[in-house]
Amino acid sequence: MRTLTIDQVDDLALGATLLGTGGGGDPYVARLMLRQAINTYGPVTIADPHELPADGLVMTVAVVGAPTVLLEKIPAGTEFIASIEALASYLGRDPVALMPIEVGGLNTLLPLAVATEMGLPVIDADGMRRAFPQIEMTVFTLAGIKCSPMSVADEKGNLCVFETNTNQLGETLVRGAVMSLTLANAFSSYSMTVAEVEAHAIAGSVTYCTELGARLSAVQRGESGAYDRFLEFAEGRVIFSGVITDVHRETTQGFSKGTVTIEARDGTERSMKVAIQNEFLVAWENDRPVVTVPDLICILDAETATPITTETLRYGQRVNVVAMPCAPEWHRDGMLEVVGPKAFGFDLDYVRVGA
Amino acid sequence: MRTLTIDQVDDLALGATLLGTGGGGDPYVARLMLRQAINTYGPVTIADPHELPADGLVMTVAVVGAPTVLLEKIPAGTEFIASIEALASYLGRDPVALMPIEVGGLNTLLPLAVATEMGLPVIDADGMRRAFPQIEMTVFTLAGIKCSPMSVADEKGNLCVFETNTNQLGETLVRGAVMSLTLANAFSSYSMTVAEVEAHAIAGSVTYCTELGARLSAVQRGESGAYDRFLEFAEGRVIFSGVITDVHRETTQGFSKGTVTIEARDGTERSMKVAIQNEFLVAWENDRPVVTVPDLICILDAETATPITTETLRYGQRVNVVAMPCAPEWHRDGMLEVVGPKAFGFDLDYVRVGA
Repeated sequence: MRTLTIDQVDDLALGATLLGTGGGGDPYVARLMLRQAINTYGPVTIADPHELPADGLVMTVAVVGAPTVLLEKIPAGTEFIASIEALASYLGRDPVALMPIEVGGLNTLLPLAVATEMGLPVIDADGMRRAFPQIEMTVFTLAGIKCSPMSVADEKGNLCVFETNTNQLGETLVRGAVMSLTLANAFSSYSMTVAEVEAHAIAGSVTYCTELGARLSAVQRGESGAYDRFLEFAEGRVIFSGVITDVHRETTQGFSKGTVTIEARDGTERSMKVAIQNEFLVAWENDRPVVTVPDLICILDAETATPITTETLRYGQRVNVVAMPCAPEWHRDGMLEVVGPKAFGFDLDYVRVGA
Repeated sequence: MRTLTIDQVDDLALGATLLGTGGGGDPYVARLMLRQAINTYGPVTIADPHELPADGLVMTVAVVGAPTVLLEKIPAGTEFIASIEALASYLGRDPVALMPIEVGGLNTLLPLAVATEMGLPVIDADGMRRAFPQIEMTVFTLAGIKCSPMSVADEKGNLCVFETNTNQLGETLVRGAVMSLTLANAFSSYSMTVAEVEAHAIAGSVTYCTELGARLSAVQRGESGAYDRFLEFAEGRVIFSGVITDVHRETTQGFSKGTVTIEARDGTERSMKVAIQNEFLVAWENDRPVVTVPDLICILDAETATPITTETLRYGQRVNVVAMPCAPEWHRDGMLEVVGPKAFGFDLDYVRVGA
C-alpha cells in the first residue's frame, strides 16, 4: 500500500476535472473536504486489490443528485459514513476498503476523504475512469455486477436502502428519494469483493488521474514541452482549436442538455459542434462525428489550459478540444449498450478517437 | 395463546370492513389469502403481549398504495415476507410476532396470513382499531414510537428500506417508492418490543374486530335483537337513516376525496353530509358537525346491513349511519394533532359520538 498526501490533492483534483469531460460535478468542494480530512486523519492509504483479502467487501461512495445543487450545497460529511454504515448493516458486513464509482468529477476525491476519516484504504480502481450521469454506466455493469443494494443518506440522519432487480429501477428509486431529501445526497453502491474488483474494475484509476493532473498542471505552468508530455500520457490529441460561437443549454429531465459550437480561426470554414448531456458526449466536425462516448471529449481554455465545464462555457472563449480514449477496460462485450452513443439517445455509431 | 380458525375468518373480515369506515381497502383479497394460508399452514396463533418475551421484536406488515389499484391487483404473497425479512436484516434481529398496523380494512387480515405462513404469532393489538390513510396516524405516534425504519417490497424482489427522522418524511419517501414500484406494495414498519406493544398499542383489537363482525353477521342473518346486541358491543348508535341523494368523489393527491349527502325520508327536512378522505371522517346533520375523527362513522345498507365503502356509495341507496367511539387508547395527549379533524384539514373541533 502507498499513501496519497496533501501535496497530490491539487493534481488529483485537476485530473478529476479533466476526466469529468465537462461534467461530473465541480471537485472544488470535494477538494476542500479531502484536504481537511488529510489534515485531520492523515494521508489517504491507496491499495491495489492484491494487497487486500480477496473475499473482503468493497463499496463505492459518491454524491448523487442535481449538479447545480452540488455547486451550492456543501456536504456535512456525516452523510457519507452514514450511507456506508447503512449498506454495511443491510449486508451484515463491514467494508475492508472503499472505491470511487467514477474517477472523473467530484466523486473522484470524495471517497478518499471518507476513507481516510474511516481509517480504510481506497482501492486504486473505479468503474468509469471518466464521469457518466447514470448509476448503471460502469464497467461493473458489463461484468454483471449489480449496483444494488444501494443506500442514500442525507446530512439530517435520514437513510434509504434499495435492492432492485434492475439497475434502471435502482436509478429511478434513487432519483426519487433524492428529490424527497435534499437534492444532493450521499450514495453507496456496487458492493463487491476485492476479487471482483481485481477481475472487473478499471485498474490504477486514482494514480492515472493524479498523473494526468500533474502533467496538465505542468502545461498550465507553461513548462516547455509539457503539452506533448500531457497528450502522450493521455494518448490524447487536440482535435480542434477555435472560438466558441454558440452555447445552447437547458436543464431538462434532471439533466443539463445542450450543444456548444466552436469555429476555427485559421481561415478555414471548419467548425465543431459538441453535444452535452451533463458531460460532453459527441463531437462533430462539419457535421461528421469525429469522437463519441465512451471516449473522452475535453474542452480546455486555449490560454490557461483550464478544463472548461458545461456550466462555465461562454461565448467568445478560445478553446482547444482534446479527445482521449476511454479506459481499455471499457472494450468488452456490451460496452455500446451501456455507454455507447445510442445509450444516450444519439442515432450514431461509436467513433473512436483517431478513427 | 389461542388460535383463530378458518371459521372465524368471515367474521373478522366483516368486522374489518366495518372498522374501515368506508375505506381501508377491500378485505376481499386479504380474506382469500388468509383462508388459503390457514388451509396450508394451519390456524393463526393469536397472542397477548404477556405471553411473549418482553424484549422480543414485533413488526407490523401491511399493504401500502393506491386503494383503487388494490382492488385490481392481487398480491403475490412473497412480497410481505420479503418486507419483513428486509427490516429484520436491517435491524439485525428477527421478529417474535407480527401485529396489524390497523385493524380496519384489508390490513387487518393480511398480517394474519403472513404470520401463519412464517410460523409466527400475531399480537392481539394494533395502532388504530379503525383505518386511517397515513402511516403516522397511530397511537404509537402518540407514544413517541417512530414508524421508521420501514421497508417496502414488491412481488418482483425489489426492496426499499427507509430510516427517517420524521414520520412525515417517511410517508413521503414510501409514497414515492410505491409510485416507482407497482403502486400497491408490501410495507413493514413500527418495529418495537413486546413491552412497548403492551404499554402503548390498542389491546385486543383482533378479538374485538372478530366479535364485532360476528354480531354484525347476526344482524345480516336477521336474528331477533341482533342490531341492539351489535350496537351495545360497539358502544355505537344509529345517528341517521335516509337515502343517498348526492355523491361527490374525486381522486386527488393520492386520496379519494369527496362528500356523500343523505336525506331523511321521515317527513322532516333533516339531512346528513359525510366528508370522505379515503375513509368517512366527519358527519354533519343540517350543517352541524355531530361526529368527527377519530370516532368512527360507518354507513350500512338499511336492508342488508352491509357496510358500504366509499367506492360503492350510490345514489338512491337506503342507509343507516352508525357512529362508534374510537378505541379508548386514542384518548391520550396529542390525539387531536395526529388524527383530529384539523389533521385532515377540517377547521373543526373534535365532536365525540353522543356529545
